[in-house]
Amino acid sequence: MAEQFRDILETFANSYPGRDYTIEIICPEFTSVCPKTGQPDYGTMTIRYIPKEKCVELKSLKFYMQRYRNEGIFYENVTNRILDDLVAVLEPKWLQLKSSFTPRGGISTNVVVEYGEK
Amino acid sequence: MAEQFRDILETFANSYPGRDYTIEIICPEFTSVCPKTGQPDYGTMTIRYIPKEKCVELKSLKFYMQRYRNEGIFYENVTNRILDDLVAVLEPKWLQLKSSFTPRGGISTNVVVEYGEK
Amino acid sequence: MAEQFRDILETFANSYPGRDYTIEIICPEFTSVCPKTGQPDYGTMTIRYIPKEKCVELKSLKFYMQRYRNEGIFYENVTNRILDDLVAVLEPKWLQLKSSFTPRGGISTNVVVEYGEK
Amino acid sequence: MAEQFRDILETFANSYPGRDYTIEIICPEFTSVCPKTGQPDYGTMTIRYIPKEKCVELKSLKFYMQRYRNEGIFYENVTNRILDDLVAVLEPKWLQLKSSFTPRGGISTNVVVEYGEK
Amino acid sequence: MAEQFRDILETFANSYPGRDYTIEIICPEFTSVCPKTGQPDYGTMTIRYIPKEKCVELKSLKFYMQRYRNEGIFYENVTNRILDDLVAVLEPKWLQLKSSFTPRGGISTNVVVEYGEK
Amino acid sequence: MAEQFRDILETFANSYPGRDYTIEIICPEFTSVCPKTGQPDYGTMTIRYIPKEKCVELKSLKFYMQRYRNEGIFYENVTNRILDDLVAVLEPKWLQLKSSFTPRGGISTNVVVEYGEK
Amino acid sequence: MAEQFRDILETFANSYPGRDYTIEIICPEFTSVCPKTGQPDYGTMTIRYIPKEKCVELKSLKFYMQRYRNEGIFYENVTNRILDDLVAVLEPKWLQLKSSFTPRGGISTNVVVEYGEK
Amino acid sequence: MAEQFRDILETFANSYPGRDYTIEIICPEFTSVCPKTGQPDYGTMTIRYIPKEKCVELKSLKFYMQRYRNEGIFYENVTNRILDDLVAVLEPKWLQLKSSFTPRGGISTNVVVEYGEK
Amino acid sequence: MAEQFRDILETFANSYPGRDYTIEIICPEFTSVCPKTGQPDYGTMTIRYIPKEKCVELKSLKFYMQRYRNEGIFYENVTNRILDDLVAVLEPKWLQLKSSFTPRGGISTNVVVEYGEK
Amino acid sequence: MAEQFRDILETFANSYPGRDYTIEIICPEFTSVCPKTGQPDYGTMTIRYIPKEKCVELKSLKFYMQRYRNEGIFYENVTNRILDDLVAVLEPKWLQLKSSFTPRGGISTNVVVEYGEK
Repeated sequence: MAEQFRDILETFANSYPGRDYTIEIICPEFTSVCPKTGQPDYGTMTIRYIPKEKCVELKSLKFYMQRYRNEGIFYENVTNRILDDLVAVLEPKWLQLKSSFTPRGGISTNVVVEYGEK
Repeated sequence: MAEQFRDILETFANSYPGRDYTIEIICPEFTSVCPKTGQPDYGTMTIRYIPKEKCVELKSLKFYMQRYRNEGIFYENVTNRILDDLVAVLEPKWLQLKSSFTPRGGISTNVVVEYGEK
Repeated sequence: MAEQFRDILETFANSYPGRDYTIEIICPEFTSVCPKTGQPDYGTMTIRYIPKEKCVELKSLKFYMQRYRNEGIFYENVTNRILDDLVAVLEPKWLQLKSSFTPRGGISTNVVVEYGEK
Repeated sequence: MAEQFRDILETFANSYPGRDYTIEIICPEFTSVCPKTGQPDYGTMTIRYIPKEKCVELKSLKFYMQRYRNEGIFYENVTNRILDDLVAVLEPKWLQLKSSFTPRGGISTNVVVEYGEK
Repeated sequence: MAEQFRDILETFANSYPGRDYTIEIICPEFTSVCPKTGQPDYGTMTIRYIPKEKCVELKSLKFYMQRYRNEGIFYENVTNRILDDLVAVLEPKWLQLKSSFTPRGGISTNVVVEYGEK
Repeated sequence: MAEQFRDILETFANSYPGRDYTIEIICPEFTSVCPKTGQPDYGTMTIRYIPKEKCVELKSLKFYMQRYRNEGIFYENVTNRILDDLVAVLEPKWLQLKSSFTPRGGISTNVVVEYGEK
Repeated sequence: MAEQFRDILETFANSYPGRDYTIEIICPEFTSVCPKTGQPDYGTMTIRYIPKEKCVELKSLKFYMQRYRNEGIFYENVTNRILDDLVAVLEPKWLQLKSSFTPRGGISTNVVVEYGEK
Repeated sequence: MAEQFRDILETFANSYPGRDYTIEIICPEFTSVCPKTGQPDYGTMTIRYIPKEKCVELKSLKFYMQRYRNEGIFYENVTNRILDDLVAVLEPKWLQLKSSFTPRGGISTNVVVEYGEK
Repeated sequence: MAEQFRDILETFANSYPGRDYTIEIICPEFTSVCPKTGQPDYGTMTIRYIPKEKCVELKSLKFYMQRYRNEGIFYENVTNRILDDLVAVLEPKWLQLKSSFTPRGGISTNVVVEYGEK
Repeated sequence: MAEQFRDILETFANSYPGRDYTIEIICPEFTSVCPKTGQPDYGTMTIRYIPKEKCVELKSLKFYMQRYRNEGIFYENVTNRILDDLVAVLEPKWLQLKSSFTPRGGISTNVVVEYGEK
């Protein structure tokens, strides 16, 4: 089940829960597999969020991202699915995920998904 | 008929139709022909859209863009025409097309067209 | 008469008059003459406009810009005068002109003028 | 006690207290220690603030930043703590702190915290 | 008296007084002296303003800026003082001054001051 | 016959035939077709040569390059073939051709061919 | 056996075998696995070679590079091993391989290996 | 007569005639006219020379360059002609002139001419 | 004793000892302390070497570099001392060390030291 | 006397006198005065040298460079004079000085002087 990927994500308690602030995490080494061609895709995942009670632990996030290494999934779907996983685990006030994939056939694609109000 | 170009565009079902998110597609290898001089024009087409039920399939988009390779058409018109085709086929919530053409006579031109509300 | 410069500008009919879209034209090879020192000035003229019925024809724009080659005129005035000429000929919904001049005495100058509502 | 770090910060009287203006201070040589791994972290601290009665003295700010050189503290916490110290000492109208850390495990992190209204 | 510096500033009549437009002037060769250490400071002064009746003459502005060459003055104060001088002489609708100083002790500073409404 | 392409190239007499000097011509709008996939390729052709009696006329060079627009040919071969054509027509002392093609399947290719002694 | 990877590499006949020219191929999407930590490594492989009788076919090169996706191997060894494979299959006059890996623990590594005389 | 342009060039005595050193002068505001189309050309002239007894005075060089403003002349010829003028007036040990012209028809051109031994 | 720092450096056997190849290692997070002012210095250490029998293990190199974190030492000396340590431990065919330090008092410094023949 | 400037330069003993290595010092905050116009000049002085017995002390170098702040001197002469001073004080094996001045009248100038053999 795809949802099981999120079990690997760990959190730690936000020490400043009463304050709105933004954490930006940039993962330029994301890779998954195109479900149509079986060819690897490469991209950068940029997470920006305002935490409530929980912050994402970075080492667990690294392992979570690595789970997609041999996973066949489209650009649009992987972006939405990672957003869903992060929102389920972090329960943030606001979270935005931007993915930027390297060119295929001379065409490159970025996807931006957002949860909550800033 | 110019409208026939759009028949080549294929779509796939948006898996997250209830969520507003943005897909950006950058096509830096666009080329058409100036109808006045017969000389080739070169540019980048950048599509940004919020899908409703349909997403554009990238390989078909590549073939669609290639159809302009030997088509004589002005900067302003090709930008509007591609917008019309994408809107007709994708029926998006919002779509923006930006074209950026390389210099001619020391002058370069960009055109931005938009459909719907963000 | 300065106004005569604008006679050289040609237009073609906007094929999409019912739609608001933006055309940006970048002219990095502008040169005029400083009326005080007689020395040449160099700059980039960037036009951005939303057309109504008319679009500017690019070859005539190139010739129009060349008319300033030996014209003595201050930065602020040439920017306003070109705006006036373009507005008179194009009757656009909105037009912005930005000029950027190369350094003189270690100081560089940009001017931004706007017409109409975006 | 962590709060004691702030004692090193010195201020001087704002000569223009009746006017809202912004001071931006960029400290690209920040380093602290990861409390989990004991490994050093490196980053840039960017402070932007609108002063009321007091401005921060730059040499004391340099010494304050150096105090974190051997301090074990997480990205999120150090950013919030420095904000708290600067706000306590400067009592500014508005203050924003942005931290940008170099990559660890292929992932880089930025944090933005803000105090007051702009 | 510090105010006497402004006497060197000359103006010329704005030929388009009924129109709001923006003039940006970039002076990357500004230098003054730190009043504490006696060491020279180096920076860029960027002026942006909407003129009313008067525009600043660039050669006189160059000489005005040079007057700070051997003047001992803090970053925050010199930025506010130049703003005051320009506002007194130009009586503009709006004026913004941004100063950017090179690093000292690994720390760089920018100051932004504004007058009037845009 | 492929060799016929070169008939379009025109030359003019080198006015400084007794002097070794270098002419560099950069053509960033080259496009041909992959003979295997039928898909368009895009690249930049950079010619550097030391003329003997003849220099290449730039407008004819532009038309020559355009002849490859719908020609199916591999990267390595098109680079060698253009070198052969230029050498046959210009009879230069030395000529180097560098081609740089945009990525395909995440891989980009450059080819450098040289004729004569520098 | 590691040598078996090279079986996937295909070649085509060099059409200009009597001429020394250089082919450069840039593969920015290389990934393998650290044999010590089991963590993925990411890098760019840049091949430069002077062919004799054979040129490498790019699609087969892409598949060859992908074989390292789940292979545990050190930076230095993978660079030498790919060189050996390319030399065995292409029998070039000269071949250079440069690998550039993304930072680990704040440290990045490049390796350059060469075969034959230029 | 074209040679008369060089009369405007002034020199001053090299204070270090017994020492080989290099002076580089970059003139990014060069403009002349295409003799074929009558259209203006724009480029950068970069002079590098080792003086013997004379150095070129910069203000006179600026006026010399401006003389080409309305002169019809090809890229290759103007580069050689300026070299000849500089060599005649400066009698340097070594002099190199590089011209770089902005794109025309999507093609840009640089010319490098050299005199003497370095 | 300063030499004791080198004890932390570990090596692994070069798998390709019969072949000359270059390994480049970039450490942008180097910091030491100025022995005169007690203030921290920051820089990048770039090692390039041709191994004989031994390659440096990267994790031990990271720990070795961190030992300078609180060490008082001049730019020139730390560069030579690290070279000596690396040469003693690796016994390479050739090794070059380049250090680049961030500006102090508006002045930045780089040092390049080399051992052996390339 | 101009030579007196050099009295301010201090040296320290080179700890590695038996080894050839290169020290590069970049001073981007150099300013002097044009002896013809009285206007300030701005530039970057880049020193590269191989020391024998002595290295230049950086703080004294900063003060030495500041001595030119109000000194009227031509580009070519100041570069040669600083070289002479550094050579006299450091007695290096090799020393190169490169000066790069900001544009005047649209023209920028660099001078490179060298002493000794590398």
